[in-house]
Amino acid sequence: MRTFECDYTEGAHPKILEALTRTNLEQMSGYGFDPYTARAAEKIKAACGAPDATVTFLVGGTQTNRIALDLLLAPYEGVLTPDTGHINVHEAGAIESAGHKVIALKQTDGILEIDALEAYLSAFYADATYEHMVQPGAVYLTHPTEYGTLYSKEQLKRVRALCDAYGMRLYVDGARLGYALGCPQNDLTLIDLAALTDAFSIGGTKLGALCGEALVFPKKAPNMLMTQIKRQGGLLAKGRVLGVQFDTLFTDGLYDAIGREAIRHAGRIRAILTEKGYPLAWDSPTNQQFVLINDAEADALSKHVGFDRWGRTKAGLWIARFTASWSTTDADVDALQAALPAKNALCRQEKSV
Amino acid sequence: MRTFECDYTEGAHPKILEALTRTNLEQMSGYGFDPYTARAAEKIKAACGAPDATVTFLVGGTQTNRIALDLLLAPYEGVLTPDTGHINVHEAGAIESAGHKVIALKQTDGILEIDALEAYLSAFYADATYEHMVQPGAVYLTHPTEYGTLYSKEQLKRVRALCDAYGMRLYVDGARLGYALGCPQNDLTLIDLAALTDAFSIGGTKLGALCGEALVFPKKAPNMLMTQIKRQGGLLAKGRVLGVQFDTLFTDGLYDAIGREAIRHAGRIRAILTEKGYPLAWDSPTNQQFVLINDAEADALSKHVGFDRWGRTKAGLWIARFTASWSTTDADVDALQAALPAKNALCRQEKSV
Amino acid sequence: MRTFECDYTEGAHPKILEALTRTNLEQMSGYGFDPYTARAAEKIKAACGAPDATVTFLVGGTQTNRIALDLLLAPYEGVLTPDTGHINVHEAGAIESAGHKVIALKQTDGILEIDALEAYLSAFYADATYEHMVQPGAVYLTHPTEYGTLYSKEQLKRVRALCDAYGMRLYVDGARLGYALGCPQNDLTLIDLAALTDAFSIGGTKLGALCGEALVFPKKAPNMLMTQIKRQGGLLAKGRVLGVQFDTLFTDGLYDAIGREAIRHAGRIRAILTEKGYPLAWDSPTNQQFVLINDAEADALSKHVGFDRWGRTKAGLWIARFTASWSTTDADVDALQAALPAKNALCRQEKSV
Amino acid sequence: MRTFECDYTEGAHPKILEALTRTNLEQMSGYGFDPYTARAAEKIKAACGAPDATVTFLVGGTQTNRIALDLLLAPYEGVLTPDTGHINVHEAGAIESAGHKVIALKQTDGILEIDALEAYLSAFYADATYEHMVQPGAVYLTHPTEYGTLYSKEQLKRVRALCDAYGMRLYVDGARLGYALGCPQNDLTLIDLAALTDAFSIGGTKLGALCGEALVFPKKAPNMLMTQIKRQGGLLAKGRVLGVQFDTLFTDGLYDAIGREAIRHAGRIRAILTEKGYPLAWDSPTNQQFVLINDAEADALSKHVGFDRWGRTKAGLWIARFTASWSTTDADVDALQAALPAKNALCRQEKSV
Repeated sequence: MRTFECDYTEGAHPKILEALTRTNLEQMSGYGFDPYTARAAEKIKAACGAPDATVTFLVGGTQTNRIALDLLLAPYEGVLTPDTGHINVHEAGAIESAGHKVIALKQTDGILEIDALEAYLSAFYADATYEHMVQPGAVYLTHPTEYGTLYSKEQLKRVRALCDAYGMRLYVDGARLGYALGCPQNDLTLIDLAALTDAFSIGGTKLGALCGEALVFPKKAPNMLMTQIKRQGGLLAKGRVLGVQFDTLFTDGLYDAIGREAIRHAGRIRAILTEKGYPLAWDSPTNQQFVLINDAEADALSKHVGFDRWGRTKAGLWIARFTASWSTTDADVDALQAALPAKNALCRQEKSV
Repeated sequence: MRTFECDYTEGAHPKILEALTRTNLEQMSGYGFDPYTARAAEKIKAACGAPDATVTFLVGGTQTNRIALDLLLAPYEGVLTPDTGHINVHEAGAIESAGHKVIALKQTDGILEIDALEAYLSAFYADATYEHMVQPGAVYLTHPTEYGTLYSKEQLKRVRALCDAYGMRLYVDGARLGYALGCPQNDLTLIDLAALTDAFSIGGTKLGALCGEALVFPKKAPNMLMTQIKRQGGLLAKGRVLGVQFDTLFTDGLYDAIGREAIRHAGRIRAILTEKGYPLAWDSPTNQQFVLINDAEADALSKHVGFDRWGRTKAGLWIARFTASWSTTDADVDALQAALPAKNALCRQEKSV
Repeated sequence: MRTFECDYTEGAHPKILEALTRTNLEQMSGYGFDPYTARAAEKIKAACGAPDATVTFLVGGTQTNRIALDLLLAPYEGVLTPDTGHINVHEAGAIESAGHKVIALKQTDGILEIDALEAYLSAFYADATYEHMVQPGAVYLTHPTEYGTLYSKEQLKRVRALCDAYGMRLYVDGARLGYALGCPQNDLTLIDLAALTDAFSIGGTKLGALCGEALVFPKKAPNMLMTQIKRQGGLLAKGRVLGVQFDTLFTDGLYDAIGREAIRHAGRIRAILTEKGYPLAWDSPTNQQFVLINDAEADALSKHVGFDRWGRTKAGLWIARFTASWSTTDADVDALQAALPAKNALCRQEKSV
Repeated sequence: MRTFECDYTEGAHPKILEALTRTNLEQMSGYGFDPYTARAAEKIKAACGAPDATVTFLVGGTQTNRIALDLLLAPYEGVLTPDTGHINVHEAGAIESAGHKVIALKQTDGILEIDALEAYLSAFYADATYEHMVQPGAVYLTHPTEYGTLYSKEQLKRVRALCDAYGMRLYVDGARLGYALGCPQNDLTLIDLAALTDAFSIGGTKLGALCGEALVFPKKAPNMLMTQIKRQGGLLAKGRVLGVQFDTLFTDGLYDAIGREAIRHAGRIRAILTEKGYPLAWDSPTNQQFVLINDAEADALSKHVGFDRWGRTKAGLWIARFTASWSTTDADVDALQAALPAKNALCRQEKSV
């Protein structure tokens, strides 16, 4: 049974495997001092319009967030995040383990309420006791968000302005960035991200790499970057493994193509779900689609197709997630179309079984 | 001008200064291996009805919370607290600097909403991804709370039951504990705290010590306690300074007497404030009293008496705090009675000046 | 020009690449909940004769050491290591960044002087102030060592006995373990390591994996292992990448075969070096061979063959490292034989160029 | 029986107790925002000839070292210290608990071997792998050292020059600084320390305070100093307790007078020890005197006078410490003169008892 539960159920995009195989026996220096890593970094800098950027490659998303934020923050600073932010929920306290408080603010469908951010900062510095509190040092956003939603360029500019006004840095976690870039509703390019953030990541794992995230510091390079990465256990001996993959992803527009294609599949999935009567939990324009079903429906549905029981509404319904990815094919979606019962048939069918 | 802004504006209770002076030239071993520290610990164990307890003495409140929680928690565990908890707001990230997430839950007037605690825990373990999240390892409460309010024994028992059910420890921050113990509305004794918690502190600084908090582990002694305290920079060379002070506080009922007397003064302060038309922000039975005034009133009032601009309501009013302490005298309260204008006269008077 | 500078200059063993390719489009759960990871763990447990062991897979060596030691140590404990230990020299303070002191002891050619260990422990607990010091919680060894040397089973038993006597854990870093297992002089099997240690790693990166180390806890499983790994940024979304690789390495004796073959090549390299007049820096029976040359010789030699300027002797000579690995072929060694000038011809030749 | 075991066996200098008593009921702001703290800081800045210095007050020595070094170091930097340095031996890993490696170098009688420092730094940056190592960020020295010995101004200048050459900071732990300043052999003034270091501490605890160390940043003030101190659990609510004490110590030359007087007593103690045949372990010009005795002698001696079994020589002799302090009187030393048996009579006498 085909599963749509998440975007990391397969290995790597065929072109990536092919590149790894092709370069396998070339002898190269370790720790990222190989020509593929250098080339990947150059291609990313070019794509970002940021020739002075520092680009490094790390293995995983939590590792990337932890290292990036630790480098952006002074030890006594914390990071502001929408309460749904990955660092606040699903990173097992990685940021706090590096000594930084994660300060959660309100969001709507995963998008930080910028008014709440502004109110927080304004109240913080109006409070005579603020020196007894964790200093807000950075804002963390995900793009797309955990809800599949997108920031607009206007929103990001507004956050940037607040960061400037309050001496903070801006970091964008792009674990699924390709699925934003490939989305017609998205108006935030790599060039915008490089212009507006102090650091952002370009996710590889969920976009067809075996593993790997590119971490971009568009302006100011951190001190002793390799040493800091090694200290946090993030330095790969065979840095080529990441270099070759990102070199492939950023050659001939592969990264963009992967995103666009997945978004096309996600659009079909959404249409199928809607057409069969599954109400959308919210409007996600990217590769993750979320619908509401009750317990009995979820149990029944799981006999027909793989999906993720992503969460619960306050009312107790399941939020079921269907995900398209770099590995999704038209055949997969056709199969979904064929296998998916209409929502109102789910429990009827179940009973008759 | 007399100030009522907080409970640490003076030095030490005269009996404490006298004891420090009397014992000053006695030669004693350092690091708490002196007879006064031993005696203070014995007296506290007796007062707690906990002969097997481990009692140690630390200098300050944030230090005590940081060390206590770090000893109670595994490195990967976090601590649940009402969002108003001191560790979540006014300790500059001390808990996170030891690697632990502080997880904030709803409260009312500083009292943790126990239903919210139960809901959090129940949802946490129902979530299939809970291993990706910070594990809840302890509950942190303050008694009295930052709002001057008190937990009932029933409430603490309910929290304890949840801790037992979910494998968590319970820690009570008693920075102002004496002002609970001295309060008629309080039904939580030292014996109850020793029975219901895994650790709690008995505040000295705000109860008449120059500095110092007693930290009580009623049941299980932590491993290598002195080493762990030293590692966190909390070990005092002249441990006697804390031992002599707590020996004094726990001799002849001084700690209780200080609490009771301050509560008596706080009752008068409350009556004076109420009588002169200042609306209570909420009902605090302990040594801190909170009233609501607007900006102009606050400015006017500050010419008559010292108080603390403790915070703001959402509506923009000041929450003004008036505090009684071990150092408050009847004369002080008489002076307040004399100096305090009626609220509705504040701005009128101001204009006529 | 062929380089022998280290054992991670190529990608992956062909069988590993083939397995990654073969399984690439199978849909599997993430985070190590896939059948290949389960199978790899089972095979390793069988190879270790440790059916109750916990086996987990991590990406890199420093990450593995940091996580393993953090899990084995209480926060206030440090780790004893030969002063040449990788954690003491080349991990950029990763262990200290997790809060643990690294306590360096004497070694000879990378092998801990066990008398020095015994003397340290005996003096430590004889010191009346030992509670003011970092508590020795574990011993860290590498096998083979950074010098390519090997512990004997007798030596490891003696270290184990000291660990037992002093309440410490024993951890062996096996980043190059396969090159010990494949070495005739080695008498420490996986079964011995499982019997004698509290945890040890089985290196993949240097033995033909793209990346990856297996971490084995032969007896006591750590609490919340996945959570702790995630917290330290070590959890791989596509855990299969590690599972498939280790499943391959532990199928049909591949791991052992890789080790044996590299040791055979290293033996030839050693013979060639010796025969051509290069004095061995010390006696390494494993895949790394070290010879002494002066500056001029090093510069001259580097025009003929790639090697690593590994370090300097006190007398100022270079310690040049030649490494065999899973990727070394007979043709490579033949080429070395052909290209390597006699040592006494190096500078002569140089001058005549 | 009078003990000379250490310099913190009594409480506080009478003038300090008197000042605490005199100011006890003055109402002051907390957290160091009181006039006595301000005045103490001004006096110390004047004594240091450093009008732009930042002076803060902390409770204990380990806390001071931990906070100072954490503020001076980047997270990925370590600190170089003589291997006998307090931070390397007797602080239970406090520096490592803040994430920083302590790198131990050779010393003689507690004085860092500056040639060893230079050799370390020169080798470090000559090593091609230095980015994989902990970056040397600061040098830590104690003055006087743990052995009671003193750096000369020439030595400190040489260390400063190395710090400048290698981009490091210099921190001097002055837990016993007064006993250097009061010593005729000392040529390092407060003005020199302010000129040559990036931070240094002025010990109060061992110089007659109940507790307290002044921490001086002569040039560059750390960011958010109070926040950083609070975060590490070092902020005292009643900051006045430290302010009043240091104000007293730096009024009318009390700090210097305490040092000078103790050094005079130490000179007499040394003469008595020498005269009675106790060989000095090394030449300490300050308030601690160390002599060599065997086990039987130590046991016998301990019936006559209190001293510290400070350590062992490699040959197994005890290093016995006799300490003069702010509380030592001529009568104390007279009593020592009367009570101390000649060394060669110790065991004879013992047998005849």
